[in-house]
Amino acid sequence: MTTARSYDVVVLGAGSGRSVLSEELAHLRTAIIDCGPYGGTCLNRGCIPTKMFLHVAEVAGSLPDLSRLGVDAHVDRVRWREIRDRIFDRIDPFAASGPAGARSAGIDAYVGAARFVGPRRLVVAEPGGDVEITAAQVVLAQGASPLVPQVVRDSGVAFHASDTVMRIEDLPRRMLVLGGGVIGTEMAQLFWGLGVEITMVTRGSHLVKGVGEDIGRRFTELMWQRWALHLNAEVTSVAERGDGIHVGLADGTALVTDLLLVAVGRRPNTDGIGLEEAGVEVAQASGRVVVDEFGRTSADGVWALGDVSSVHQLKHLANDQARTVRHNVLHPDAPKPLRDKAIPSAVFSDPQLAIVGDTLPQALATGADAVAFTQKLGDTAYGWALEDTTSVCTVVAERGTGVVLGAQLMAPQASSLIQPLIDAVARGLSARDVATTQMWINPAAMELIENALLGVAEVATP
Amino acid sequence: MTTARSYDVVVLGAGSGRSVLSEELAHLRTAIIDCGPYGGTCLNRGCIPTKMFLHVAEVAGSLPDLSRLGVDAHVDRVRWREIRDRIFDRIDPFAASGPAGARSAGIDAYVGAARFVGPRRLVVAEPGGDVEITAAQVVLAQGASPLVPQVVRDSGVAFHASDTVMRIEDLPRRMLVLGGGVIGTEMAQLFWGLGVEITMVTRGSHLVKGVGEDIGRRFTELMWQRWALHLNAEVTSVAERGDGIHVGLADGTALVTDLLLVAVGRRPNTDGIGLEEAGVEVAQASGRVVVDEFGRTSADGVWALGDVSSVHQLKHLANDQARTVRHNVLHPDAPKPLRDKAIPSAVFSDPQLAIVGDTLPQALATGADAVAFTQKLGDTAYGWALEDTTSVCTVVAERGTGVVLGAQLMAPQASSLIQPLIDAVARGLSARDVATTQMWINPAAMELIENALLGVAEVATP
Repeated sequence: MTTARSYDVVVLGAGSGRSVLSEELAHLRTAIIDCGPYGGTCLNRGCIPTKMFLHVAEVAGSLPDLSRLGVDAHVDRVRWREIRDRIFDRIDPFAASGPAGARSAGIDAYVGAARFVGPRRLVVAEPGGDVEITAAQVVLAQGASPLVPQVVRDSGVAFHASDTVMRIEDLPRRMLVLGGGVIGTEMAQLFWGLGVEITMVTRGSHLVKGVGEDIGRRFTELMWQRWALHLNAEVTSVAERGDGIHVGLADGTALVTDLLLVAVGRRPNTDGIGLEEAGVEVAQASGRVVVDEFGRTSADGVWALGDVSSVHQLKHLANDQARTVRHNVLHPDAPKPLRDKAIPSAVFSDPQLAIVGDTLPQALATGADAVAFTQKLGDTAYGWALEDTTSVCTVVAERGTGVVLGAQLMAPQASSLIQPLIDAVARGLSARDVATTQMWINPAAMELIENALLGVAEVATP
Repeated sequence: MTTARSYDVVVLGAGSGRSVLSEELAHLRTAIIDCGPYGGTCLNRGCIPTKMFLHVAEVAGSLPDLSRLGVDAHVDRVRWREIRDRIFDRIDPFAASGPAGARSAGIDAYVGAARFVGPRRLVVAEPGGDVEITAAQVVLAQGASPLVPQVVRDSGVAFHASDTVMRIEDLPRRMLVLGGGVIGTEMAQLFWGLGVEITMVTRGSHLVKGVGEDIGRRFTELMWQRWALHLNAEVTSVAERGDGIHVGLADGTALVTDLLLVAVGRRPNTDGIGLEEAGVEVAQASGRVVVDEFGRTSADGVWALGDVSSVHQLKHLANDQARTVRHNVLHPDAPKPLRDKAIPSAVFSDPQLAIVGDTLPQALATGADAVAFTQKLGDTAYGWALEDTTSVCTVVAERGTGVVLGAQLMAPQASSLIQPLIDAVARGLSARDVATTQMWINPAAMELIENALLGVAEVATP
């Protein structure tokens, strides 16, 4: 039996898409559809649990280094199941309450897989039977999922990805992380901090390609000291034997591990849900829903936001797009553009990485007359305190004006320290203006940024 | 034998005053005078060494808390002398090279006590004999020193202050910290983190008065859990006996300790150096050199900066004043005013405290139509990660415009997290403008600030 319902606005995906349906849409008939759990990747399998684990892992992993500073300390025991349960016992009820929360806000919440059967017409497979839904406007926000390489899929070997590995029963002795991007790096940091022996295999010539070559290489140098690293590597065979999972590389290297973690990228959830029937164009290679500057897809009345349509798979960007698309759904005749400038991102490794705007090569490639200056944290007071020898902040600025074009950081708490540089790029401020209009507390970590700004100002506007 | 020399500019005090004599004054005959070590309080006895110790102390002190999060760890040994020597072996050579460094920059560097014998006329007691110095312009930057209460001085009991306690030979089992201000609190945190049993005695009703009552009380609640705290207390007796130093309080409480640390405040170094002869007015009660908005003292051609003349004894303020006074010395007919707005400060305790601008009561007292909003770190993603239940950020804004008037924080790394709020106060920006013009990385600690800004904007400009 199929029930039929119609709405003003239907959102596909209860992650960032959920926040499109705020009080401002209370006068409309609205629905949200997700096969669950509600809350999306960030809450259930991404930002939130990883950062909860990473905090513990970072402190535990830093103890050996403390000895260099004169305090001998050691980890007696990592109570993995307790850590895991503490984290998911907090997250899971939150996610489980998602549908009821939506309903109490007057939103019809569906839990089930959805498939388009025509323009703005979907069928949701609910436990009680199929529901056919039509909507005046649809928002696509169904996110992305881990990619699995063919060689792993074909092997039949049991593996984990970021959506399952944080819920394992026991820590393995050895873990092989396939992929050296943001997720692979954060996962390696997480399990390394808790005492797991890590081997990482990546096709890249350095880790976290997205942060640029300079910071990427500096970071890769540090990680060599923590885990076995195979760069420029290709997996050619995967097989399970008595003593573990055997992974062969193209150069003949043979590796053995207890747990295989696949982290080679994420693909938008656009396959097999009838987007052709919906008239929604999808980019062939990337699998992304194609949107214009306002978040409009190729189908009339259909919008998209977040990982399903964005080059940058970032929660803060998806949140920002949700606010813009909410406005656009309410005012389709006066839509606002999605933010496309000064979009920052970070890796919550130890040390953290953070970037915004252009690297020097990127800025030069756009034709800008750009210069860069790199400040070492170790040459600031707080860097002295940490006995830091590796952390840096590079600021890129326009010659003549000193306007900040971008920044790349590797430092403790880089994800927070970068904030004045995000603001500078967003507002188009000059480095000297940012450095001197405000005071900087001595000897706070933020002096890294003050000194980087003063340094680049000296070069750009001598 | 007295030598006589004359200069264009003489600076008294080789702390922040040293940076007055930059390359821009290379065409002038300049001198600097300090009885040593060069580098001032910040380098030798203040900001720098305390933060180097505090980093170690914070990590060591946080290990018991890690157990709550599922990792059992413990400190095996604190190698105090190694920590101390590592820190001072780095600082002391830097300070020792001060005079030679100045001389190689063409500045005459005197190491000895100075005394004014007339307007812009001093005598320096150098090892080789007295030198009489006259100068066209003089900059007073001789800093401040720990105050010692009468009852302690009269007792004859050996005690420490912040300038000596970091160089002790062995950690005591027990330490009594007299004073609950910034210095007393940082010292208590430092030694508590390294395992010393702390008792704190303060006249205040809460710790660190300067951060305002709300944050001060919240912080005091936390410190109760770490050390014995005697608030609203007055020391009436101090005596050494066989089993330790006995300290009696006005309410009859009798305390015993192994080391007495005096941290009841700092007094400008203005006594006994002939400031009357120099014609420099000193405020009776505070002992501060009186300056106008440009840093001019009551004596012609004599300027002052830093702790010797400022209400706020802050290194970043002294640095800022040194830059302004440098300009004013070079352009006495077109002087710039000293910065008097958006001056931030922080306490490097765990958690850190940081403030800028007005508290709500302060803002209301100025006649502003002000509102405030308090955001809990625990209600942000990063706060979840830390399992934080106590950290907060309060933002004060003007009703109607939403312009940020001040902020008070208690949180990990508050000294850095406060930066966008310093900028907001300095530029007179509205809370919503600051929150929405730039993006904030999820789930970075900085989201505490974003959410506090959005919260106060909601209240101030609904």
